Amino acid sequence: MDVPAETPDQRLRARAQCVIPGGMYGHLRSDRLPAGYPQFFERASGCHLWDVNGRRYVDFMCSWGPIVVGHHHPVVTEAVQRQMAAGDCLNGPSERMVELAERLVGLIPHAHWALFAKNGTDATTTCVTLARAATGKRKILVAQGAYHGAIPWCSPNTMGVSEEDRAHMLTFRYNDVASLETAVQRAGDDLAGILVSAFRHDYGLDQELPDPAFARRSRELCDANGAALIVDDVRAGFRLTLRGSWDLVGVQPDLSAWSKAIANGYALAAVTGNNRYRDAASRLFVTGSFWSSAVSMAAALATLDVLESTDGPQRMHELGLRFREGIAAQAASAGIGVRQSGPPQMPTLLFDDDADFAKGECFTLETLKHGVYLHPRHNMFLSTAHTEADIDFALEATKAGFAALAARGHSS
Amino acid sequence: MDVPAETPDQRLRARAQCVIPGGMYGHLRSDRLPAGYPQFFERASGCHLWDVNGRRYVDFMCSWGPIVVGHHHPVVTEAVQRQMAAGDCLNGPSERMVELAERLVGLIPHAHWALFAKNGTDATTTCVTLARAATGKRKILVAQGAYHGAIPWCSPNTMGVSEEDRAHMLTFRYNDVASLETAVQRAGDDLAGILVSAFRHDYGLDQELPDPAFARRSRELCDANGAALIVDDVRAGFRLTLRGSWDLVGVQPDLSAWSKAIANGYALAAVTGNNRYRDAASRLFVTGSFWSSAVSMAAALATLDVLESTDGPQRMHELGLRFREGIAAQAASAGIGVRQSGPPQMPTLLFDDDADFAKGECFTLETLKHGVYLHPRHNMFLSTAHTEADIDFALEATKAGFAALAARGHSS
Repeated sequence: MDVPAETPDQRLRARAQCVIPGGMYGHLRSDRLPAGYPQFFERASGCHLWDVNGRRYVDFMCSWGPIVVGHHHPVVTEAVQRQMAAGDCLNGPSERMVELAERLVGLIPHAHWALFAKNGTDATTTCVTLARAATGKRKILVAQGAYHGAIPWCSPNTMGVSEEDRAHMLTFRYNDVASLETAVQRAGDDLAGILVSAFRHDYGLDQELPDPAFARRSRELCDANGAALIVDDVRAGFRLTLRGSWDLVGVQPDLSAWSKAIANGYALAAVTGNNRYRDAASRLFVTGSFWSSAVSMAAALATLDVLESTDGPQRMHELGLRFREGIAAQAASAGIGVRQSGPPQMPTLLFDDDADFAKGECFTLETLKHGVYLHPRHNMFLSTAHTEADIDFALEATKAGFAALAARGHSS
Repeated sequence: MDVPAETPDQRLRARAQCVIPGGMYGHLRSDRLPAGYPQFFERASGCHLWDVNGRRYVDFMCSWGPIVVGHHHPVVTEAVQRQMAAGDCLNGPSERMVELAERLVGLIPHAHWALFAKNGTDATTTCVTLARAATGKRKILVAQGAYHGAIPWCSPNTMGVSEEDRAHMLTFRYNDVASLETAVQRAGDDLAGILVSAFRHDYGLDQELPDPAFARRSRELCDANGAALIVDDVRAGFRLTLRGSWDLVGVQPDLSAWSKAIANGYALAAVTGNNRYRDAASRLFVTGSFWSSAVSMAAALATLDVLESTDGPQRMHELGLRFREGIAAQAASAGIGVRQSGPPQMPTLLFDDDADFAKGECFTLETLKHGVYLHPRHNMFLSTAHTEADIDFALEATKAGFAALAARGHSS
């Protein structure tokens, strides 16, 4: 083994190379991050995270979204322990499933029913299948470059994907009404649905909130064609609002896909739908061995309790704004051009003239050294466990990040 | 609401009808079971299960497979609590992932690496995608009627499924070498893999163990064509042996899909593969928000500890044989023709001349009244938490079941 076995993280990487493909797979593999980022983690508490080398970070990835009220939130932990003591994976659901479906139907304006799964991909795939089942049509429109999961019909990596896996997928440009209309025309009388992310949060690009006119036109085109408007709220759901992200632009989808923040890190996904899709949903066969497990649903109920009682989305908005404004002031002071995009609860920070992300990597490596875990390309995530003091701690780190950039002559 | 709201189960069903499609979806919906089976459950312990009406059952479904050492096994619970106190869903995996991959590679002869997911369907889909990615071919051969998951390429329900979703799937008959050879010929030079269940465990049919000649021929045909032999061990894995179910017939696959019993009810799936598929696996993008979560992996390590130290598969074999032999004697005594099939750890009990399963339903409803949860059509599952006393208790119930059949003139 030619990996230097010095730190615990390096030793684990060396062991992982032997028994895990590439040493790690998927979105949590660290080889897309600058060398110096840890791959393996030891523990977490609130908004803090410790890697296996014992270093602590104020975490701005929140496990890439799932952690929304902080690790080990007492309300969630108490609900989880209570349900675990009774039972989790049984021969059928527990009362928690009914309670959670009732809760989502009560919270989310478009929702008349809910069903539960484990992965975000389960939820988006169920929405697409359901749109086809209910309409008897086949074409699904998706935005170019949007991420909706990691199986052949939607994966960003096309290894092992055949042409037929995407035979009925057509693309448009997010927020571009004309391109959406063209795609609808191309679908002709075979349009099953339009699948659209809560906002444009493509990897490595500036984020874009949905243009209300685009959202309204999506709704109209679905109505005119008897097609399903599907919002993929897997990444944004329960962070911007508890009512479904497109409620913020006044548009209700027919179906929504949820996961990530729904249960504060416990494995759960959901589909919500309106009554037009109830009958087809009741005849569809979708399932998984752990889809009815009660603990993740108890966690979801408790997470929603906390988010509701503390106005969590608004709180994360305030914290995100404080972070954004602090960074903007530092960037201006350093004379370094940055672009901050997306909702404040899910910030993306990119640097001008940084096509290879060299500035972003230099910057986030410096913040990492100062105990703040930021991502140089992907959108980040706030939680309600962050405090003003955590944000201010992070802003000390970003100040050092700008200084490091300036020292390397990266001022623009 | 016209559902009589009498028992807690009935009240929950009525509430569920409003907010869950069909009141429940997937394999745990009770409408495939005789009226009288509960839909909702309250708690569990060992091999015992309580429904929301407060009735206790000796459980022979084990949550349809996941529970293999019994609910709340102290070794699993202790490992879970320890990991939960540290962290579960983090910005990357914990050391548990490496330990579990090392453990599987050590246990399973064909395994040189492992990766982890949440659903059995994640694992089978990853195997199929990986076979195509590594071979550059497209055709996947599957046995007619086999269950490999619930998304469009494999779902038993074709609602919302387009022709293209299965464009490259070809079928053969399980254990039928000639039909397998014909399917291989039909695939021509485009054969990516043969996907085959650990044994034939199709819904409502007698089970069939793999014919060693069929298994060997599958291996030869894959080798001759550079294709992947994939064993779907989701349902059987870790119950018949810890080495992969086809090890029992002396055949090693290239890839295996695992889930269900791997973590005693915690949501986890795995793919194991040999070195021929390591490079493709390291370049594939497969992922999910909770695939690296540490608690389910801690549970898996503890579950394997218990299964290894107690020779769990052999123990379940003994218990299953005791159950099978007791039922055979009762059936003979009652003059009622039954067919018991499959490995003793996963028994299927079907009645002669019972095309509509009326006898099976009468029988299992009677056992249910006597506190024993059996399934009239699907294979069942033993766990190491069952004891001889539990089996004997169950045999008192089956005795009553045979008596009920005889009283209704069902003797054959």
